[in-house]
Amino acid sequence: MENFQYHNPTKLFFGKGQLEALKNEIPLYGKRVLVLYGGGSIKRNGLYDRVMSLLKEIDAFTVELNGVEPNPRLTTVNKGIHLIKENELDFILAIGGGSVIDCAKAIAAGSHYEGDVWDLVTKKAPVTSALPIGTVLTLVATGSEMNGGSVITNWEAQDKRAFGSIHTFPKFSVLDPELTFSVPRDQTVYGIVDIMSHVLEQYFHASTNAPLQERMGEAILRTVIEVSPKLVDDLENYAYREVMMLNGTFALNGTLSMGVKTDWATHMIEHAVSAVHDIPHGGGLAILFPHWMAYVAKQKPEKVAQLGIRVFDIDSKGKMDNEVAKETIDALRSFWNSIGAPATLSDYKIDDKELELMSERAMVAETIGGYIPLKKEDVKEILRNAL
Amino acid sequence: MENFQYHNPTKLFFGKGQLEALKNEIPLYGKRVLVLYGGGSIKRNGLYDRVMSLLKEIDAFTVELNGVEPNPRLTTVNKGIHLIKENELDFILAIGGGSVIDCAKAIAAGSHYEGDVWDLVTKKAPVTSALPIGTVLTLVATGSEMNGGSVITNWEAQDKRAFGSIHTFPKFSVLDPELTFSVPRDQTVYGIVDIMSHVLEQYFHASTNAPLQERMGEAILRTVIEVSPKLVDDLENYAYREVMMLNGTFALNGTLSMGVKTDWATHMIEHAVSAVHDIPHGGGLAILFPHWMAYVAKQKPEKVAQLGIRVFDIDSKGKMDNEVAKETIDALRSFWNSIGAPATLSDYKIDDKELELMSERAMVAETIGGYIPLKKEDVKEILRNAL
Repeated sequence: MENFQYHNPTKLFFGKGQLEALKNEIPLYGKRVLVLYGGGSIKRNGLYDRVMSLLKEIDAFTVELNGVEPNPRLTTVNKGIHLIKENELDFILAIGGGSVIDCAKAIAAGSHYEGDVWDLVTKKAPVTSALPIGTVLTLVATGSEMNGGSVITNWEAQDKRAFGSIHTFPKFSVLDPELTFSVPRDQTVYGIVDIMSHVLEQYFHASTNAPLQERMGEAILRTVIEVSPKLVDDLENYAYREVMMLNGTFALNGTLSMGVKTDWATHMIEHAVSAVHDIPHGGGLAILFPHWMAYVAKQKPEKVAQLGIRVFDIDSKGKMDNEVAKETIDALRSFWNSIGAPATLSDYKIDDKELELMSERAMVAETIGGYIPLKKEDVKEILRNAL
Repeated sequence: MENFQYHNPTKLFFGKGQLEALKNEIPLYGKRVLVLYGGGSIKRNGLYDRVMSLLKEIDAFTVELNGVEPNPRLTTVNKGIHLIKENELDFILAIGGGSVIDCAKAIAAGSHYEGDVWDLVTKKAPVTSALPIGTVLTLVATGSEMNGGSVITNWEAQDKRAFGSIHTFPKFSVLDPELTFSVPRDQTVYGIVDIMSHVLEQYFHASTNAPLQERMGEAILRTVIEVSPKLVDDLENYAYREVMMLNGTFALNGTLSMGVKTDWATHMIEHAVSAVHDIPHGGGLAILFPHWMAYVAKQKPEKVAQLGIRVFDIDSKGKMDNEVAKETIDALRSFWNSIGAPATLSDYKIDDKELELMSERAMVAETIGGYIPLKKEDVKEILRNAL
């Protein structure tokens, strides 16, 4: 392991009816609240009314910002910062999935920063403080409800960037599985792929001697694989939704990355693809991850083989690591296809015209990825294989 | 799962040389420091001098309390509270293992309470605030470095009780595996048994649908089982010590008990035994846990069988759950014996004379244990089987 610091101060309220926690928690931080959400689904399913009624009970002053995009945009972040400053708000309540929560984090950091918030997102300036935020999770996928990370898209520049800070961890998150019942099948599938990808990005690390972190990752993967086929056929089942919710939160709350240099190349490549084509993040990951894995397995098949043996129960007797790795990748792709995730970029009508542009965008540094550093030509090859 | 709240605000500084963190962390809370430790081992190995030198660098005013017992006593807690009040101290630095940290938590809570601290330990009064504490861990076992729990012995009353609060979580813990190099083999073994027992107390819960929590418990158990035989034969190996340290911390930091009603009967029985006989906690657990498991397997063998299949690789083909459970218990006992843990109460010269007293002491409520509630007669039978 590498030396590390671990600090996750987010308080979770998990289970049925936990929305009530808003009444005790919000007043700890302030009563002038920016209520942030995405499309109108929370109005249709009644969640909006329930939240506003609770906020009224505690005499909160509220300002709303809705329409946060699936890949939240810098323009929306700036709107939020403007509202915070104009109305002297002291708390942000994010109701939604990862995109709304990520947007809230950027608004929170940006409203405590004098300059352009894009400086913080691109890490030109450090986040040194932020407005407190709380979340009500309605879509299980990104893990943003229990970490300090945020991904923001600058649509004009076709650029999608991740930043994070201890200051942007939610103070609390309400995790009520019932609030995810209305998530449709395709979004549920994208969430499943995202969760598994988060585990894999950390599982394929460049460090030694992290057996507990790896086994915890395997624990999440096995649990997701077990519950997913049942969940996608029974979307309003509380037992399946609660297990998936906990999986999603723990896949990216810092536990799996303690003391290891993680990979994240596939996410960077996917961010480049979806910055150019605005495809669903989970769909992009389902296409790209098996191709990334096949590419790195040519150099380092052992870890892919370990994954296959421990998570996909692949019988390794008498086989070389590269054979087991190949079976592992096939098993992963088959699993994702079996629950309805896409398999090729052409499923999104993406052809070879923009391979260069997407590869270029993915290169946020000289090389990307911790497990095996990739150059632009490697990325282009992975994208070509995924067409 | 049951509804739950999860909140673990402790900051970890993990790895070589992390003691330096004291210089930045302590001044966040105060500079009048109670330095709490046990015997003289930290003076012999130089840790005491290193800590005092760092405290001098930040101009801290220090008062020392040493001699904290392996089962920390109420009398020592009261000494600490007296020192805090007399010297108007604002921070407690606990250097040691679980007993020192537990003692620090009781001092921290007691020094913010007007009445007798034993009221807090016996839960007659709630902990509503506490002095901030930080820890430097030197013995891996109890997990106290990342939770709010504490176990205190009232030696005069032969009573050993556990209490806990969000207010008594350490603000930070320094986890440097090198600081555990000098822990002798027997103490290392007791720590291993303690860690595994913590996982088992939570694994055997009375709730349904907690597959992730169970698999994470299995991840810790497998990792401990893998590294322990190597560690006990190579006590100054950094790689083995760091893995064990992380196992110990995550075995009892709240992750495994999210949303489940845990058991803890074996700990209550062991506390009764060691309150009467002052035997090592880990030794007592190694003796008692297999007997507890055999006793409950008569009614509910399925979970014991699951443990055996997933952690001890027991082949269940064509076998009934109770057969697999029996093999599991044998495997657990064999493993603990193989690393040098005791197997019977007579190893500590405990005979049947005090069975009644110990059973009586264990009954902190009408029944004990979440998995299967035990009455006094059940406890007595388990103790008799363990003689």
